[in-house]
Amino acid sequence: MLTLGEARVCIVGLGLMGGSLGLALRQQRACRTVIGADSNPQTCAAALTLGAIDSTAGAPDEAAAHADVVVLATPVRAIIALVERLAPVLQPDALLMDLGSTKLGVVQAMARLPEHVQAIGGHPMCGKEQAGIAAAAAGLWRGAVFCLTPLPEGRTSPAALALAQQMALAVGARPLLLDAARHDRLVASSSHLPYLLSASLMLAAAEAAAPDPLLWQVAASGFRSTGRLAGSDAAMMLDVLLTNRVQVSGAARVAAGHLLRLAALVEAEDERALRPEIAHIQEIWQEAQA
Amino acid sequence: MLTLGEARVCIVGLGLMGGSLGLALRQQRACRTVIGADSNPQTCAAALTLGAIDSTAGAPDEAAAHADVVVLATPVRAIIALVERLAPVLQPDALLMDLGSTKLGVVQAMARLPEHVQAIGGHPMCGKEQAGIAAAAAGLWRGAVFCLTPLPEGRTSPAALALAQQMALAVGARPLLLDAARHDRLVASSSHLPYLLSASLMLAAAEAAAPDPLLWQVAASGFRSTGRLAGSDAAMMLDVLLTNRVQVSGAARVAAGHLLRLAALVEAEDERALRPEIAHIQEIWQEAQA
Repeated sequence: MLTLGEARVCIVGLGLMGGSLGLALRQQRACRTVIGADSNPQTCAAALTLGAIDSTAGAPDEAAAHADVVVLATPVRAIIALVERLAPVLQPDALLMDLGSTKLGVVQAMARLPEHVQAIGGHPMCGKEQAGIAAAAAGLWRGAVFCLTPLPEGRTSPAALALAQQMALAVGARPLLLDAARHDRLVASSSHLPYLLSASLMLAAAEAAAPDPLLWQVAASGFRSTGRLAGSDAAMMLDVLLTNRVQVSGAARVAAGHLLRLAALVEAEDERALRPEIAHIQEIWQEAQA
Repeated sequence: MLTLGEARVCIVGLGLMGGSLGLALRQQRACRTVIGADSNPQTCAAALTLGAIDSTAGAPDEAAAHADVVVLATPVRAIIALVERLAPVLQPDALLMDLGSTKLGVVQAMARLPEHVQAIGGHPMCGKEQAGIAAAAAGLWRGAVFCLTPLPEGRTSPAALALAQQMALAVGARPLLLDAARHDRLVASSSHLPYLLSASLMLAAAEAAAPDPLLWQVAASGFRSTGRLAGSDAAMMLDVLLTNRVQVSGAARVAAGHLLRLAALVEAEDERALRPEIAHIQEIWQEAQA
């Protein structure tokens, strides 16, 4: 397998993540060339103008056929479909990877590919609430954990893993190896649950603001911070939630249980129980900062 | 009543909010002098060193006795106790105000004061998750909405209201007049609910991390943003929740209902219902930014 420096990298999906990857790879001169593909021709044009890619090929099949590394950067369910679709056109020694927010479904699709295809799942733990190529930035990756989820039973070769790690490091991220099921279980609580909490805040605030829109004026930085993830790209989030259903719904129920328990303590004016609870919450937060 | 420029301002409670008020008033030369009081002598010393106050008086009664404007900046239940305690020592023409996060209990205590005492509730919509004088900053107020809640039945004179507005403007905030009950109803959803959602996130994440502490490593900026308010000062939050019990527990139940409903849609893979729901959530967020 080639090194990253020699590789022609193909990015399919030139939104925030794909566009930012192209920008970072080209800015770092980390690979030979970046070929981009996106279903929207205007996005391809914008990616060329912004310098996120060197060239574009209309369909993903064409772009992938001439690449040493193919990175799928669409919403998760489109990634799963692309894994199957692109397999026949991949070069024998090519590496297929992705940037999807859930990993089990992607890795399972990758494991069904012909033996000669090398593949690994990837999920960089970064993003922002703006979507699309216009929001792309090379610096998005800096210091972010980049989860890499190899295929089961050693199907991902050491060389393929090394190449994926090289790419994560090249854009300034920190590769973290873990298996796909564990990844999905952890991000259900650390990433998808925060989205659902932000979403519930928006719905509850909108309900309270309906008879009294002054609410939006008294909403301060705490509201914006807690509610930020509600601005996440809707198409991306739909795929995230639907490809991690059991873990996500479980995490949401756990959180709802805590929320209702806290509400009951407040309502009952149970200061004896509430005081240590609030101190404990602050401690968890402090430990999470460390 | 004096103008702010002529006033001796007394701040009781030199934490984040009281300390930041002193810093801003002194930096803007907005009043004649700032006298500070805090139950912790080290806090008073730090406030002097940092330039948040001109002088200190041991007990709040002493500090308040020589002031034209007395600002109570402790947790809410301490404010309510101080309103009663300080009333006898206040100068005949002094203005009593506060910076507490809930207003109905404070304004009700203020309304029980002797007729000659002028008073108004205040709540600047700003803050951060660090507490204490060390975190104080003059810039904290810049652009923030400063809620002012006059006493019922015209008990707050136009001159007293004007002085409170002058103070809000002097520190760079935007005064917003509304009655105390309405304030508490709005902040239940816009401020106290976000805290409880952050708190529930911490509790759920800690539960998921107990068997697998790798969770803290994959927790990214979205987790930190949604969870930020969980770091709020525990003593302050306890008072906030306990002085707005009905509104807070009601808002929490509304949000928990949405969270459980979203969880059920995810679990049932109900894409037809989930898709417009997620789009709607993103729209609410976008409108809240405007």
